[in-house]
Amino acid sequence: MNSYGRFFRVTNFGESHGASIGVTLDGLPAGVELSEEDIQRDLELRSPGKSEISTPRVEADSVEILSGLFNGRSTGAPITMIIRNENIDSSGYDKNRDIPRPGHADYTAWVKYQGYNDFRGGGPFSGRATAALVMAGAVAKKLLKQMEIDVAASTIQIGDAKITGELSFDEIKANRWSNEVRCAQPETAARMKELILQAKSDKDSVGGIIECIIQNVPAGVGEPFFCSVESEISKLMFSIPGVKGVEFGSGFKCAEMKGSEHNDPFTITDGKIITETNNAGGILGGITSGMPVVFRVAIKPTSSIQKEQKSINLKTREAADLQLEGRFDPCIVPRAVIVVEAAAAIAMADLVLSAKSELKT
Amino acid sequence: MNSYGRFFRVTNFGESHGASIGVTLDGLPAGVELSEEDIQRDLELRSPGKSEISTPRVEADSVEILSGLFNGRSTGAPITMIIRNENIDSSGYDKNRDIPRPGHADYTAWVKYQGYNDFRGGGPFSGRATAALVMAGAVAKKLLKQMEIDVAASTIQIGDAKITGELSFDEIKANRWSNEVRCAQPETAARMKELILQAKSDKDSVGGIIECIIQNVPAGVGEPFFCSVESEISKLMFSIPGVKGVEFGSGFKCAEMKGSEHNDPFTITDGKIITETNNAGGILGGITSGMPVVFRVAIKPTSSIQKEQKSINLKTREAADLQLEGRFDPCIVPRAVIVVEAAAAIAMADLVLSAKSELKT
Amino acid sequence: MNSYGRFFRVTNFGESHGASIGVTLDGLPAGVELSEEDIQRDLELRSPGKSEISTPRVEADSVEILSGLFNGRSTGAPITMIIRNENIDSSGYDKNRDIPRPGHADYTAWVKYQGYNDFRGGGPFSGRATAALVMAGAVAKKLLKQMEIDVAASTIQIGDAKITGELSFDEIKANRWSNEVRCAQPETAARMKELILQAKSDKDSVGGIIECIIQNVPAGVGEPFFCSVESEISKLMFSIPGVKGVEFGSGFKCAEMKGSEHNDPFTITDGKIITETNNAGGILGGITSGMPVVFRVAIKPTSSIQKEQKSINLKTREAADLQLEGRFDPCIVPRAVIVVEAAAAIAMADLVLSAKSELKT
Amino acid sequence: MNSYGRFFRVTNFGESHGASIGVTLDGLPAGVELSEEDIQRDLELRSPGKSEISTPRVEADSVEILSGLFNGRSTGAPITMIIRNENIDSSGYDKNRDIPRPGHADYTAWVKYQGYNDFRGGGPFSGRATAALVMAGAVAKKLLKQMEIDVAASTIQIGDAKITGELSFDEIKANRWSNEVRCAQPETAARMKELILQAKSDKDSVGGIIECIIQNVPAGVGEPFFCSVESEISKLMFSIPGVKGVEFGSGFKCAEMKGSEHNDPFTITDGKIITETNNAGGILGGITSGMPVVFRVAIKPTSSIQKEQKSINLKTREAADLQLEGRFDPCIVPRAVIVVEAAAAIAMADLVLSAKSELKT
Repeated sequence: MNSYGRFFRVTNFGESHGASIGVTLDGLPAGVELSEEDIQRDLELRSPGKSEISTPRVEADSVEILSGLFNGRSTGAPITMIIRNENIDSSGYDKNRDIPRPGHADYTAWVKYQGYNDFRGGGPFSGRATAALVMAGAVAKKLLKQMEIDVAASTIQIGDAKITGELSFDEIKANRWSNEVRCAQPETAARMKELILQAKSDKDSVGGIIECIIQNVPAGVGEPFFCSVESEISKLMFSIPGVKGVEFGSGFKCAEMKGSEHNDPFTITDGKIITETNNAGGILGGITSGMPVVFRVAIKPTSSIQKEQKSINLKTREAADLQLEGRFDPCIVPRAVIVVEAAAAIAMADLVLSAKSELKT
Repeated sequence: MNSYGRFFRVTNFGESHGASIGVTLDGLPAGVELSEEDIQRDLELRSPGKSEISTPRVEADSVEILSGLFNGRSTGAPITMIIRNENIDSSGYDKNRDIPRPGHADYTAWVKYQGYNDFRGGGPFSGRATAALVMAGAVAKKLLKQMEIDVAASTIQIGDAKITGELSFDEIKANRWSNEVRCAQPETAARMKELILQAKSDKDSVGGIIECIIQNVPAGVGEPFFCSVESEISKLMFSIPGVKGVEFGSGFKCAEMKGSEHNDPFTITDGKIITETNNAGGILGGITSGMPVVFRVAIKPTSSIQKEQKSINLKTREAADLQLEGRFDPCIVPRAVIVVEAAAAIAMADLVLSAKSELKT
Repeated sequence: MNSYGRFFRVTNFGESHGASIGVTLDGLPAGVELSEEDIQRDLELRSPGKSEISTPRVEADSVEILSGLFNGRSTGAPITMIIRNENIDSSGYDKNRDIPRPGHADYTAWVKYQGYNDFRGGGPFSGRATAALVMAGAVAKKLLKQMEIDVAASTIQIGDAKITGELSFDEIKANRWSNEVRCAQPETAARMKELILQAKSDKDSVGGIIECIIQNVPAGVGEPFFCSVESEISKLMFSIPGVKGVEFGSGFKCAEMKGSEHNDPFTITDGKIITETNNAGGILGGITSGMPVVFRVAIKPTSSIQKEQKSINLKTREAADLQLEGRFDPCIVPRAVIVVEAAAAIAMADLVLSAKSELKT
Repeated sequence: MNSYGRFFRVTNFGESHGASIGVTLDGLPAGVELSEEDIQRDLELRSPGKSEISTPRVEADSVEILSGLFNGRSTGAPITMIIRNENIDSSGYDKNRDIPRPGHADYTAWVKYQGYNDFRGGGPFSGRATAALVMAGAVAKKLLKQMEIDVAASTIQIGDAKITGELSFDEIKANRWSNEVRCAQPETAARMKELILQAKSDKDSVGGIIECIIQNVPAGVGEPFFCSVESEISKLMFSIPGVKGVEFGSGFKCAEMKGSEHNDPFTITDGKIITETNNAGGILGGITSGMPVVFRVAIKPTSSIQKEQKSINLKTREAADLQLEGRFDPCIVPRAVIVVEAAAAIAMADLVLSAKSELKT
């Protein structure tokens, strides 16, 4: 089903070549200041067409708020926001209708929906559908900001270009939007861009890794087992098309660590209980410790490439070569940064509202 | 909240040193053959005390089914299963009550539950609570078996000992339970055991990676976005204590791949649509493709170690050294294999029941 | 929260004087034929301004489908539908802003939303918000029709004017839309209309009772306890503003009945198991029996009346007389008939999809 | 599914002739004082065998708490409670196995579960399953008491014997448990008892009405539409076997009322905003007004009667007379009083926890 959240509930809808992409947000407490500009700012960070490393398609993506706002504040009623799909040319899609694109959901959607799915541009499976997450995430961030919780995602790897050392949260906030790849380390950003341009000129694509940090989350948020902070965040991360892995704190590296290295020792600094290291990624037993929540998301290389590919024809059930036309993002990582950040904000908004209901009266 | 699932709903309860650990299963269709032996077999694969690489604690873990079974079959009503906690000695826990163990949920639970939590042995955060998943998973596997869906998890890495090459599903099924580390490659299993024994003699612990494969899942199961197969599986995996990362198919390696390598070409073999490679891990757009669902789970080194550690005293708010008594699993990976398999089966059971409700009438 | 349903999930949004009223429908199987006309027809049965017994306000209520439809059929993706609020004059509402209208949600919403709610015309509490249910219900009926399940609501009482005897399902279907009060017994309809006009000329309002019958529901739909057919239907009925009571089959009359009268004897007619009477209202143990599902809904007299009323001023905390301006429906029962029918269809759609997931494989 | 609640989540399990009846409660905040005696007291108010108007069956119904309690308080973890089914004689049930009892779920369960249901004594459909609600309700009342919210149900009608006038909440609390029929008006209670004994001697049964009042609920609890206070309470009431109708405040009587009579005028008394009348039953727009929440529940005459009844044989598909053996409650209303109270407390507990999550930070 297309909804997420027990308290801060997001329901997304829309498809790439239909009338609109949209989202309904339920559970936002009344009185939160909110404007279309708050949403628009984040939508633009997802937009393509602004640089040589992304698809030259132009998407206006102008948000319209259909409900739930009054005098510039949330009312407690559901907020529905849409962006219209304009100037759509769907004519190209009929041509390859029966030839599923490798790496895309064409084949699996065809099976699941028995051929009734809107296949144009991937329909609801289009990366464009992540605009719904971005809109909801922008609202979630407004709510979190009231509690002084801050979220920041950035690119840390493209192909084999990785950031070196560890960046501070302030560095990340200051530098990530300053370049097209959304990496907070300028010299690495330059290498990343090169790799993307190389892939582009090869009619190919390349993957990468995004890191996200949530700062100032109070200790005590989250639950053991099914609603652990990791469970909720990963559920949302894996709903982003193209994500192949999610790891928290030490992540996969933990396999080669010793307990004595991995355990983060508790200490007290300025009267506050913290840990000296943060292999836990800010979460112990599914519950936040007050340390920054840190996780990384692996994003596969764009599935749409201009190189010829092997596929089959679903009707004739014979092999079929596939030559995609159009111009594609040679790397979706930079545009996914704001999507990861939005999804993290949604999960955290739900978790902090949940924590309120548990307080002893 | 302690429940998971829309259709096949699991609600777990119990704590390490309370009366019992248990689980209520709702949504299992009527008529599925089921006995206490089906559950007991899997519980024993989780049990400690059977070898030199695990804690010598003896846990009988004898399942009792409290409801939902009649004449050896499910009735359609909820199934509640418990194991009693017997011969518990909780006396040791009072000693370090105010000194949170690094890597454990002691501190975060203390904050969240305002000191009212059952702290003995970690209470509901204890690894022992995963027995609830194992019981529910054993039932899920009976349901999946009716549809000829098969699940198998095994250890693929402990410390820096990794399996080499790729094992077939049949090899994994045949060999994984033949050694204490639950690895399907005997020579690697031997190296893994050595590393565990080394950690044990160092009063330390070591982590690892488990791989799980779900075979014979029909194409078309799962949903775009929030209920993607990856979202559901990862939500459950991250509810297992100690899991730091989850990846599907190519996983984190995808960051360094090109689209032309990563896209799995479609082809037809024996009249069946398959892909030549399986970087997708059997999932496209959140929906199964008919290829095996493949994922890996990173498990941190056991938090309980005998080495002295740094912590603080929550009452005095001063630094405090912590020396844990007792004997611990130097590596929880082998015992977690059946837990990962159980959780995968639960997620898949929920997904396949969900898929049934979507069929056009 | 503003969503209902596990399988056929309805999320409504919008307020009386905001941009729009709308609904997002998730879980409709792919391939159901659907057009804006299907929705529009039912919206018009809810519309006012068509007769002397309703408010002369003109509401165009023209549906716009924003997603989920392709080539005239559902795609399996969420369907969002809206009606725009046009030509709204909200100027009158500021005047009585601090004086809650008796019988309305003005006071309770003010408390709950701490004054941030959109109070204009009742905001999301407006009867106008039931258009969302009507839109979703129109789709639910299309789904039910595929299974030959048919739903019909009609007015059976206004003030003390009640239908006499029992009408057949065919009579109800044939006659209910033929008069303004939506009663299937023409002579009673005339008396009902008189009572409404009398109330109107008295600057007052009057209540009534709606009966709804769901025909051809197969036996075996519904669940014991929390998801009983009665639980699901009543939950939706009580979400309709103005509903004060819901009863099934014999209803409140059962209090004065004997078991020997009330128990419906089983018998076999034309090879089909039926009951000779239907005091059960087609439901036993929360599960449908194959007999028609029958329930009645009591609707209070319209809260908005032209007579002067006693209230208080929330700011000054003093008594305040309230004289509402505008012209109101002297009886909301006729317009609520299609709303009750829609809500019944939504509940039943969710229940029948649920029943599919339970089938033994 | 057998669970209810978003915040205070109740999952019930068990059947009449299985090992146990039980319930798992999730979401109770940590730190609530709780003991087995709190539960036992309410279970005894549901128990039969204490008087000449109920079945002489003896059910010990001794509660056992399996999890979630530590040092006499809730821990924040799920609480599972069971009562064992002891000394069960199921031999009688095989005899009429293929002949569904009129008024019971025998037939509908047989269809739904394809014959695999536990039919003995109605299995999970047994009135005995309401003990799960009573256990959960006892805990809910402890939580509500912390907020000074008080719940009291009592019998107001059996057959045609009805209480006269209106009783105060204090009178109800003081008198309802003083007689076997749980009616707070002693002279009416005597007439009710006569009617029940008459039905008993006629080998028949009789129905009745229970009223429930929830006192001291703060204004602002509940939601518009699907989670209205009425929606949540009615959903739970209709999950109680035998309930045929639910009405709030004026209830079905509203059909014959005028708006000017029905609207409850606001006024201020002792600085508190109240309404002069309470036709609303304490709820406006689905949200509590601060006035007492008042509702009534119609309960059908016991389906199990000693009189011979008409049914059919499911195997032979021929008519079959049914003569039930055993001794039954000639009226289930008195024993249902504590069940209605429990269900009301559960719904309200969930609603008040929900209201906490909505507070503006």
